[in-house]
Amino acid sequence: METVSTNAAHGGIQGVYKHASRETGTDMTFSVFVPPHADGAKLPVVWYLSGLTCTHANVTEKGEYRRLCAELGLIFVAPDTSPRGEDVADDVDKAYDFGLGAGFYVDATQQPFARHYRMWSYVTDELPGLIAENFPADSDRQSIMGHSMGGHGALTIGLTFPDRYKAVSAFAPIVAPSQVPWGHKALPGYLGDDKAAWRKHDAVALIEDGARVDALLVDQGEADGFLAEQLKPQLLEAACARAGIDLTLRMQPGYDHSYYFISTFMEDHLRWHARRLG
Amino acid sequence: METVSTNAAHGGIQGVYKHASRETGTDMTFSVFVPPHADGAKLPVVWYLSGLTCTHANVTEKGEYRRLCAELGLIFVAPDTSPRGEDVADDVDKAYDFGLGAGFYVDATQQPFARHYRMWSYVTDELPGLIAENFPADSDRQSIMGHSMGGHGALTIGLTFPDRYKAVSAFAPIVAPSQVPWGHKALPGYLGDDKAAWRKHDAVALIEDGARVDALLVDQGEADGFLAEQLKPQLLEAACARAGIDLTLRMQPGYDHSYYFISTFMEDHLRWHARRLG
Repeated sequence: METVSTNAAHGGIQGVYKHASRETGTDMTFSVFVPPHADGAKLPVVWYLSGLTCTHANVTEKGEYRRLCAELGLIFVAPDTSPRGEDVADDVDKAYDFGLGAGFYVDATQQPFARHYRMWSYVTDELPGLIAENFPADSDRQSIMGHSMGGHGALTIGLTFPDRYKAVSAFAPIVAPSQVPWGHKALPGYLGDDKAAWRKHDAVALIEDGARVDALLVDQGEADGFLAEQLKPQLLEAACARAGIDLTLRMQPGYDHSYYFISTFMEDHLRWHARRLG
Repeated sequence: METVSTNAAHGGIQGVYKHASRETGTDMTFSVFVPPHADGAKLPVVWYLSGLTCTHANVTEKGEYRRLCAELGLIFVAPDTSPRGEDVADDVDKAYDFGLGAGFYVDATQQPFARHYRMWSYVTDELPGLIAENFPADSDRQSIMGHSMGGHGALTIGLTFPDRYKAVSAFAPIVAPSQVPWGHKALPGYLGDDKAAWRKHDAVALIEDGARVDALLVDQGEADGFLAEQLKPQLLEAACARAGIDLTLRMQPGYDHSYYFISTFMEDHLRWHARRLG
């Protein structure tokens, strides 16, 4: 692991790091904020998965999480959204919603993507191991949140590993990729026609198929241009109601899909996570 | 005035606006955050002047000021750092520390800069008028802060108009451009050899020449790579001590020159301003 940069911030250290990933076969960059802490302390870890077009940098620069993580004693980890590099396949039209910057947190089975696009294993297995080795992280106290495509990632990962992630929340998540245009492109592109594989990467389908968490927190801007066509939180609301999952879905009037929205409600999410991380 | 964008944030509106400037003869872009407020209320205005290479966008995205401005009821205005456009003169070598992105908050007298580089009049006269016309701003309650070159701007403007700006503070300011390399390039470049003109754009010289404010707040990172050669806060400290100005100079161990530093201490500055704005 190579240190790209470290900056003092809110009493802790905001770092950016790079490593050669076993899963993706590429160099991967990620950011980690470590709050002030006592020597030898092990701290809970909040995972933040970013949306389409983002890297680790968007939330790191605009997410306004450091003050709260310093107050609450949380490590905050932000991975990239796809493998990157000259030999990494991209969308044929270089569109923003597939390929580079758009890994959708799946392990691709379809060529030419299967070689590098292994974001599920990267985010749930390889990177947690690296974090545990190199930072004062308590692997028994992890939680996960994300935005848009990263909200999809947080929900599907949280639902798949309910014992590992003590809290799961999302900002404007894609709750049912099987039912919306972004997913209709990404799921067959990465996973082919195997609809059973799709259901493992669709929060609503996972809940329909029996996956459970105690509670979810979702904020959704009502002025979000992607709300009606791509995000459809009412599908999650219905699935949670049927499954008995305690979903707090907060529709936020006037708010859009940007980091102005995320940074406004980041504090509520981090406090919600901290209560569940103990 | 044209609206470039507006985003809901922390209960208020973060806007970016553009107008044809009388002073610079160019289009100028700036950002304004208006916090939630009662209809008809007039709110105090905090001016934030940015540093070398920046536009309005840096602090708007990374400054972490909105939460506090919403809590304290402050309008926050961030101008650009120079005129911009194809016909605007730049440094002959396109260096970062002169010309575009480096207006130093002076009215240039030297060609080819005198035509467009009128950032002093723009920031102290034209833009305040535009803000008063278009936003719920109380012109009797203004304050000013800035970073690096913008700290220089905030200190010199605050010292020149002590009745207008009720609070003056800075992050890692250039306190004495007459005595450091950045100033040795910018001051003659914009103002020629007229050392009397230089002294009006040098906070330490202004204080030596009799300018006074009641109090100043300055934060300075000890790990700031520009500290020893360009910033020299000890010169401000000595000038304030001789003049009886109540300077709070806080040396911050481990902090650098970045927005990670600024965003960490933004809350302290805004609370300090709010107390003085009433």
